Amino acid sequence: MLQDHPLYAIMHPRSVAMVGASNDFSKMGTIQLMNLMGGNYPGKIYPIHPKEETVFGLKAYRNGRELPEAAELAIVTIPTMAVPEVLKDLGERGVKRAIIISGGFKETGDRGKELEAEILRIARQYRIRFLGPNCIGVIHPSFHLNPTMYPYLHNFGGVGITSQSGTYVTQILPYLAKLQIGFSQAFSVGNGADLDLVDCLEYLAEDPETKAIAVYIEGIKRPWEFRQAASRASKTKPVVALYVGGTEAGSRSAASHTGSISGPDHLYDALFRQAGVIRAYTVEDLFEWAGALSLQPIPRGRNMAILTHSGGPASSLADACVRWGLKVPLFSERLQAKVRELLPATGSFRNPVDLTFFMDMGVMMEKLPQIILEDPEIDGLLMHGVMGSTFFRSISEIARKWVKVPSSEQERKFFLGTMEAFIKLPQQYGKPVIASSFADREDDAVKMAQDNGIPCFRAPERAVSAMAALCRYSEIRKRGE
Amino acid sequence: MLQDHPLYAIMHPRSVAMVGASNDFSKMGTIQLMNLMGGNYPGKIYPIHPKEETVFGLKAYRNGRELPEAAELAIVTIPTMAVPEVLKDLGERGVKRAIIISGGFKETGDRGKELEAEILRIARQYRIRFLGPNCIGVIHPSFHLNPTMYPYLHNFGGVGITSQSGTYVTQILPYLAKLQIGFSQAFSVGNGADLDLVDCLEYLAEDPETKAIAVYIEGIKRPWEFRQAASRASKTKPVVALYVGGTEAGSRSAASHTGSISGPDHLYDALFRQAGVIRAYTVEDLFEWAGALSLQPIPRGRNMAILTHSGGPASSLADACVRWGLKVPLFSERLQAKVRELLPATGSFRNPVDLTFFMDMGVMMEKLPQIILEDPEIDGLLMHGVMGSTFFRSISEIARKWVKVPSSEQERKFFLGTMEAFIKLPQQYGKPVIASSFADREDDAVKMAQDNGIPCFRAPERAVSAMAALCRYSEIRKRGE
Repeated sequence: MLQDHPLYAIMHPRSVAMVGASNDFSKMGTIQLMNLMGGNYPGKIYPIHPKEETVFGLKAYRNGRELPEAAELAIVTIPTMAVPEVLKDLGERGVKRAIIISGGFKETGDRGKELEAEILRIARQYRIRFLGPNCIGVIHPSFHLNPTMYPYLHNFGGVGITSQSGTYVTQILPYLAKLQIGFSQAFSVGNGADLDLVDCLEYLAEDPETKAIAVYIEGIKRPWEFRQAASRASKTKPVVALYVGGTEAGSRSAASHTGSISGPDHLYDALFRQAGVIRAYTVEDLFEWAGALSLQPIPRGRNMAILTHSGGPASSLADACVRWGLKVPLFSERLQAKVRELLPATGSFRNPVDLTFFMDMGVMMEKLPQIILEDPEIDGLLMHGVMGSTFFRSISEIARKWVKVPSSEQERKFFLGTMEAFIKLPQQYGKPVIASSFADREDDAVKMAQDNGIPCFRAPERAVSAMAALCRYSEIRKRGE
Repeated sequence: MLQDHPLYAIMHPRSVAMVGASNDFSKMGTIQLMNLMGGNYPGKIYPIHPKEETVFGLKAYRNGRELPEAAELAIVTIPTMAVPEVLKDLGERGVKRAIIISGGFKETGDRGKELEAEILRIARQYRIRFLGPNCIGVIHPSFHLNPTMYPYLHNFGGVGITSQSGTYVTQILPYLAKLQIGFSQAFSVGNGADLDLVDCLEYLAEDPETKAIAVYIEGIKRPWEFRQAASRASKTKPVVALYVGGTEAGSRSAASHTGSISGPDHLYDALFRQAGVIRAYTVEDLFEWAGALSLQPIPRGRNMAILTHSGGPASSLADACVRWGLKVPLFSERLQAKVRELLPATGSFRNPVDLTFFMDMGVMMEKLPQIILEDPEIDGLLMHGVMGSTFFRSISEIARKWVKVPSSEQERKFFLGTMEAFIKLPQQYGKPVIASSFADREDDAVKMAQDNGIPCFRAPERAVSAMAALCRYSEIRKRGE
């Protein structure tokens, strides 16, 4: 039962004690409190402060022992040396879950190691389970729980992440918002003194909101347990991992960041392979792959169709497919004939399909994708050229002076009218559709695709690598059967 | 002399005849005319139209023979079959340069090949030199020349491109604008029946506005001449190339796109290596590398310093450095001591340098970079964490209700005050600085960095790969000495 997992209360607390929040705007604890309040957290918030009567309008308590109830979660953002005492006070009051944001422990050397051992002893004594120290906290968007230093402003989604870097849970948010990759649950584990990557992985495997799991790793303390947890998780949902501790410089950085002991790259490679984990090598791949995996059906095979209205991206998509191990089969004579019927004479119809400058959005976004995805030989669709009215609107500003231009409403209808059919394709055919566009969400068609679960990435090769991750997971699932 | 090159008049025409522009807003030729006008082209524009008296308020001419003067450039965007006749008329009037946008030639099969041969014969007869057919035209931003279908809205810059895809000259613009990668000159060569990639490469090598050259290739017709031109160019400025014709699917796509005959990947690899061309494998790399190369000093060696305020990106940068062949040396004892003095106890000072949550922007953006770049052992700086006031402004919206927050002016000063020193670093030390941030130009510090020539890419690994391209060029230059 998910409710029995030690992380459940951390992700669903009915009350939160905030140690380190004050009325000083520049303090990290204060910023965390503001995000918790600004995110409309529905539970009770108890600021703990030695001097203030109120913090941001909330009654403050002098220390953990004076709390009016045993808060279900305590968040601790105070100077390193003060952590043990504070943890004891919370334990005395009966608090059972904590997130320790404060750094200065194992990652800083011997004295820090001792301190980390001490807080672990205190936690054991009071049966406190905790995340951290040296982490950035958790985000559970659908529960309106975000006590991190960063606001979560976009839709929640299906990507569950557990990370040894807080940045990949918080600072990364503007990047993710632009692609509408949403979190289900996000854990920053920091040094992982008590609850660690493995616990989070187990939790995410069971969590029904989580459709794909992303893991950022600097070094795994419990490789055997990680392997077990990842193997189990990958049987029901995809797991993507980024490991950066396998190079000399990466290892040195990891040691000073989270005190992690990293291992040789090839060992992690083998571990991931055995556990059915898809390995990413960059932050962008980690999130974009997990995002695509959380949204799209898993393809049966590696045969991809490519559809564009521009030859360069068609060639880039085709070239990238081969480099990523995907196939771009020549369409069957039958399919070629069907496609050709809909194209202008300058178009290409054998796969890649290139419409060239041919402004029939119904052909591009509806008829062709349907004909192609209907074909049993095709396992998925890669498309460059999701195109909204933004471009034409900017052009029509100039045109308006001289000629009659279509109204905004007509333009919108022309470009977005067939998007309704387009966004239904994956569900309709049970096959993945991944797009790319050089415009971002300022383009209304890109926005519409992303808002409806069709990944639309910034370059053709990014769409291909995400599709390759889907194919990889398809094979992992088959292997496990 | 650049003025003697056949492309010079195409890039500096004092008058342009537009064949295919009309008062119908939905036609490609019309959109091209609008962009030429909207971009404030300073020369004369002569629309050619069989029926209209005026086109967009400009007097129209029935055909090329009736032009009031021999326009320095003609741009032809009409149905395939009409091109030969139109070209003859222009030739009769003495027009010597053309861009043929129309497609339907070599790329469509045997009949198209004949037609292409025919227009080449006509051009030879009248001594017309032309780009295309099946291209998208050229952009010369500082000359306000943009007769393509896409508006050029951001600053011009130092990247000269020649491309067998029009998309990578036009549709790509929103992507480039967000990174402030600006064009000096952009050529879409299409089928390259007359002037081709090699001619453009020669031109860009001589062009003083061009600081780095990007080449998008589906197949090279004149490999020997390409090698000579690229070798010569790379002696004075970096050349980056993306070749997509080397895989079976890429080759098929290239053939139907520009009628190119592509060759095996390994042959192109060898060609690039011999010619001192840096090979990119993705569209993003092509442009981001060329952008960084056009802006930053070339490093002496591969020893990189890493500076961040977050451990995850520090580890990602370090790991990526090793994967891209860069070094992240342990700082000397002396440098470690100097860096350590400026950091909080939780910081890392051995390289990577991680400030952790330490809000002294003067240390991050000014003092530390200076100390590090002064060190003769360090060849360049990679930084994640360019951070403006945007984030804090969003937080302070919430805080304002409860506490006194700094004014916008104070915030701006705090975050941007030290940026003045930061943007001078490359020039001051003659060493490259490349940054990454998960925020885009909505962040005022990212904007300021980019507007002042410090590349700021979207993820740590992107900054590293661009830095690796700089190192690669450093070695190409040394080899040539």
